Amino acid sequence: MLKVGIVMGSDSDLPVVKKAVDILEKFKVEYEIHIASAHRTPQKTAEFARNARDNGIGVIIAAAGGAAHLPGVIAAETILPVVGIPIKTSTLGGVDSLYSIVQMPKGIPVAGMAINGAENAALFAVQILSLGNPEFFEKMKEYRAEMAQQVEEKDSKLQELGPEEYLKSSS
Amino acid sequence: MLKVGIVMGSDSDLPVVKKAVDILEKFKVEYEIHIASAHRTPQKTAEFARNARDNGIGVIIAAAGGAAHLPGVIAAETILPVVGIPIKTSTLGGVDSLYSIVQMPKGIPVAGMAINGAENAALFAVQILSLGNPEFFEKMKEYRAEMAQQVEEKDSKLQELGPEEYLKSSS
Amino acid sequence: MLKVGIVMGSDSDLPVVKKAVDILEKFKVEYEIHIASAHRTPQKTAEFARNARDNGIGVIIAAAGGAAHLPGVIAAETILPVVGIPIKTSTLGGVDSLYSIVQMPKGIPVAGMAINGAENAALFAVQILSLGNPEFFEKMKEYRAEMAQQVEEKDSKLQELGPEEYLKSSS
Amino acid sequence: MLKVGIVMGSDSDLPVVKKAVDILEKFKVEYEIHIASAHRTPQKTAEFARNARDNGIGVIIAAAGGAAHLPGVIAAETILPVVGIPIKTSTLGGVDSLYSIVQMPKGIPVAGMAINGAENAALFAVQILSLGNPEFFEKMKEYRAEMAQQVEEKDSKLQELGPEEYLKSSS
Amino acid sequence: MLKVGIVMGSDSDLPVVKKAVDILEKFKVEYEIHIASAHRTPQKTAEFARNARDNGIGVIIAAAGGAAHLPGVIAAETILPVVGIPIKTSTLGGVDSLYSIVQMPKGIPVAGMAINGAENAALFAVQILSLGNPEFFEKMKEYRAEMAQQVEEKDSKLQELGPEEYLKSSS
Amino acid sequence: MLKVGIVMGSDSDLPVVKKAVDILEKFKVEYEIHIASAHRTPQKTAEFARNARDNGIGVIIAAAGGAAHLPGVIAAETILPVVGIPIKTSTLGGVDSLYSIVQMPKGIPVAGMAINGAENAALFAVQILSLGNPEFFEKMKEYRAEMAQQVEEKDSKLQELGPEEYLKSSS
Amino acid sequence: MLKVGIVMGSDSDLPVVKKAVDILEKFKVEYEIHIASAHRTPQKTAEFARNARDNGIGVIIAAAGGAAHLPGVIAAETILPVVGIPIKTSTLGGVDSLYSIVQMPKGIPVAGMAINGAENAALFAVQILSLGNPEFFEKMKEYRAEMAQQVEEKDSKLQELGPEEYLKSSS
Amino acid sequence: MLKVGIVMGSDSDLPVVKKAVDILEKFKVEYEIHIASAHRTPQKTAEFARNARDNGIGVIIAAAGGAAHLPGVIAAETILPVVGIPIKTSTLGGVDSLYSIVQMPKGIPVAGMAINGAENAALFAVQILSLGNPEFFEKMKEYRAEMAQQVEEKDSKLQELGPEEYLKSSS
Repeated sequence: MLKVGIVMGSDSDLPVVKKAVDILEKFKVEYEIHIASAHRTPQKTAEFARNARDNGIGVIIAAAGGAAHLPGVIAAETILPVVGIPIKTSTLGGVDSLYSIVQMPKGIPVAGMAINGAENAALFAVQILSLGNPEFFEKMKEYRAEMAQQVEEKDSKLQELGPEEYLKSSS
Repeated sequence: MLKVGIVMGSDSDLPVVKKAVDILEKFKVEYEIHIASAHRTPQKTAEFARNARDNGIGVIIAAAGGAAHLPGVIAAETILPVVGIPIKTSTLGGVDSLYSIVQMPKGIPVAGMAINGAENAALFAVQILSLGNPEFFEKMKEYRAEMAQQVEEKDSKLQELGPEEYLKSSS
Repeated sequence: MLKVGIVMGSDSDLPVVKKAVDILEKFKVEYEIHIASAHRTPQKTAEFARNARDNGIGVIIAAAGGAAHLPGVIAAETILPVVGIPIKTSTLGGVDSLYSIVQMPKGIPVAGMAINGAENAALFAVQILSLGNPEFFEKMKEYRAEMAQQVEEKDSKLQELGPEEYLKSSS
Repeated sequence: MLKVGIVMGSDSDLPVVKKAVDILEKFKVEYEIHIASAHRTPQKTAEFARNARDNGIGVIIAAAGGAAHLPGVIAAETILPVVGIPIKTSTLGGVDSLYSIVQMPKGIPVAGMAINGAENAALFAVQILSLGNPEFFEKMKEYRAEMAQQVEEKDSKLQELGPEEYLKSSS
Repeated sequence: MLKVGIVMGSDSDLPVVKKAVDILEKFKVEYEIHIASAHRTPQKTAEFARNARDNGIGVIIAAAGGAAHLPGVIAAETILPVVGIPIKTSTLGGVDSLYSIVQMPKGIPVAGMAINGAENAALFAVQILSLGNPEFFEKMKEYRAEMAQQVEEKDSKLQELGPEEYLKSSS
Repeated sequence: MLKVGIVMGSDSDLPVVKKAVDILEKFKVEYEIHIASAHRTPQKTAEFARNARDNGIGVIIAAAGGAAHLPGVIAAETILPVVGIPIKTSTLGGVDSLYSIVQMPKGIPVAGMAINGAENAALFAVQILSLGNPEFFEKMKEYRAEMAQQVEEKDSKLQELGPEEYLKSSS
Repeated sequence: MLKVGIVMGSDSDLPVVKKAVDILEKFKVEYEIHIASAHRTPQKTAEFARNARDNGIGVIIAAAGGAAHLPGVIAAETILPVVGIPIKTSTLGGVDSLYSIVQMPKGIPVAGMAINGAENAALFAVQILSLGNPEFFEKMKEYRAEMAQQVEEKDSKLQELGPEEYLKSSS
Repeated sequence: MLKVGIVMGSDSDLPVVKKAVDILEKFKVEYEIHIASAHRTPQKTAEFARNARDNGIGVIIAAAGGAAHLPGVIAAETILPVVGIPIKTSTLGGVDSLYSIVQMPKGIPVAGMAINGAENAALFAVQILSLGNPEFFEKMKEYRAEMAQQVEEKDSKLQELGPEEYLKSSS
């Protein structure tokens, strides 16, 4: 089974990235997770990317903030699909990270997720892997059904309690 | 072989989307291409998404501008990976399209490309498909090598001509 | 009497949406309120929109944040007027929600309110309904007169206390 | 039959506003159209707003660019629903107009449309009027069906011609 | 002596506006201060503006947030100079207020200050009044000299303590 | 009579600044006009500012684009009121110029006009000077009346021709 | 040995600027540090800049927020390289400071760092000085090696503990 | 003499970069100029950076647009000072390039210039090199004096012709 390779530029990104890990564990997708910096350890990062496929990785998730070069730098060294998570910044809210990840030049794509959208990065990786793994496909259908059911349960609760009581009950 | 399904919200997006088509043809990836609107033909769009997998589609590319709901609306109805192309707008430059595509809620990812980044949407789709199709993998390696060679040829030309002559020769 | 249908994408929007409910109750406008997601429960959402008029709804208020597709997705399935509340986001302040709601394509309008502007969404719904219901018209005139009076009372208090004491008295 | 009142701050907005007029004529909605400025003719503008209901107006459409106060200034003087069209500006693309129209304070709503979204302003006005006028309701259903059909015809043409020929045929 | 007229749209702006009052009191400039809303009490606001000159006012300071129409609405009704203070908003940081105040159309200027820049609004008003009142001119020169001296004293303290101790001493 | 001093950072700003000159000539306000750069001729610029009052200047208008320091640099060297015109930039539309002019620190105000708002800078200067010169006050009232009349004439023409003919007649 | 001259517009910038000081001390680079304002003490600031080279300074670091003119004003008075630190603002996050620092006109460059990027300003100054001082060059290589090692140690810890334990251990 | 190394990501950047070349030639600074891409030729780019110092380079200028990783990627592989030129983009005006260049993480600085600010990148490089080369220092003083003189000549022309004739003479 192909693994997901997760890379983040700094351990300060781990609280966000952890949400991607949780999704992968829920789906029982194998993964590797690394701290590697496009700027502080560029050669190690490039090596990771170059060897990813030989190491059994099928999709790479890379998280970075500010001048968020990590996903693009990895994408330049592999032809595995790379999914980028723009990390929120304290100054610009993450719009800097988003632009740095998404506005890649012709030839080297990176798939941009929402700012801090780590769960979706993992879900998207699972969706990619499910093309070659029908079991994931079924699990994803269940996951979506669960999500839908949660929405419906909340709606039922709202019908039952009304908005005022609902708010009290959840605070 | 899995196909790529391309959808655009309006035929005014076709000049951009055509660049994705050209990439797919270069890689000899089969594709379908449709005009379908999240807002003007919502049910047809939803049906397309729901039936995509049964119709042999493996990846969906959706292009839209402004309140660019199309990729997200399709992603809500399929668990195939959906790649979004934010179309440049005359008023906001496409930042509206980008936010509408990328800022998806937890659970339903869309992979955002650069504004007007149609080639990369297609290349990313090929990268996804290459996981199950080593032939694409080889072609992508060649494509990258060609790109690198073009850069190097331009650099050689620059060394030969110098910047002044280079500019004259290319204008 | 026509009802107002309120929909929000997630119960995390309820603290904001509650302010719309309070206005409707003040005006004794009947309403339904639902949690329904453009992405997690797309078919239920579409059904709600399609059946809204038959269910006695005259105006729909839809609140959503980020890639805030909910108002547009509902507007695509009904020709009742749809009023959108862009929910503030922790990363982009709600400018993403605002663009996703307001920048609708030709043919399918959504009426955008201020970010988190739930009271105004409800007031606007009442203004629409008052066209067919002169009683609401009178109530709205009173509501405006009350608002004006509150401003004038605050001004009187400011004249009386001066800015320094006014600030102390209200802290 | 209730009329639509259209106001623009300057005749330089007329090329955009004209698209709203065309929609209203298509739907055979009666309308008045005025040039009146929030800043240059404030009293005339206020009078227009105060007398609008007595003059048989049911919905007001106001277009303005830059510090686009016109819709809000009118909304302050009437309780008819006011729909704002933010006009694109040459410097900021219309984001200034959008914020000035949409970010109204609690109590006085304005319904913001897309930047330069004049057609949708008119369609939204018709949707409001159709609550008291079932004939408009039927016409709007037809209008939507026509729009959907145009999308489908374009899609059929695309299936027939393929993207390359389609582009040639429409250039 | 000409007075300064201060107007704010809501008493929630008073903590910011109070800083303008403090400057005016420091310079012993007479002032009036009012709560008056462009949208909730439009006629009272217009009257204030129309009568301002006859009431002995020479400069008007108007503070507002969001769709900050107040300064422009006042400027439309008087030819006294109007200085606008854009109030910071919780969603957009005040860029909405800034655009609404500054992007006035040709013919009706408003002088925009920094977001929340209430002191500078008052200082600017004093600078205007000092043209007809040399005493203010002298006071302003002293005020500037004091500011310069404070900067120099802080610099001296920094030379003496060094950055580490300076930080400790001021925390 | 106090003069207006106009300064621009580069002669490329003159086409915009000329509109301020035209207003001053219309009002028969005396003026000086200079090209002086905050960065290229800082000492000459500072001298201009320091000597402005002694040279009979009452208000300074400064136009600059990009990191538009000129108005602030002048304001630092004079206590005459300084009005800043943010010049539109080809890259950021002038939002850079606007922020650089408007976001001045506490103590040294600059009055920001709209991007490229040169007419309003001149009108604002006249409004300031009219406090000490009732003749300008009367002229400004006439100017406003003329503006209002132009709006009304355009409205009359629109009532007469209708929007379609109006557009044809003005193209 | 050439010194680094550090200037900040206000002592409120010192907590950020202190991080630059710490880097310079780590590298044993001599420095001066001053509080001097482009607007409140313009002449002292200009003198500092004019005399910097004669005072043994080789690189100037200037920090400022809002209409952050300080780096540009200094650059106008010296031909030493000037490095600007845009300080985060509470209203616009520092994008105003960034534009004011970076968008300098042709002829007078300022080197912009990240918002609040004080460490990098100091590191960049050291990189400049190392051209004439091979010892700094060696120290910088060590500094980078240390940074790389820290990243690798964190990665090793992550491999050992896994993401869950890592997060617990660092909170 | 140390050389300047210029790198651009694509030959489409050459028209902008050429302006840096012209400055270097004017100052008789030796330079190398290359086309090398962070994404399409990452290894060649890294090698260039790693060998730059041994090849006699003292400062590197790197120009890139969009997700402009090139300057940061080079900075990660050398400790020579790296100056980044953000290239204007057709969609976002270059704010994407600016953020990607300027918002570098702690440890690896890049000196950001204005969008398309190629002359200033070269001037800044000369300023750096002048620390070890007093001849450049003198030339830069002359360059600045020439610039100042040009401004003064334009001002003299403006005094002579007046704004109206000046505009005619330069169009």
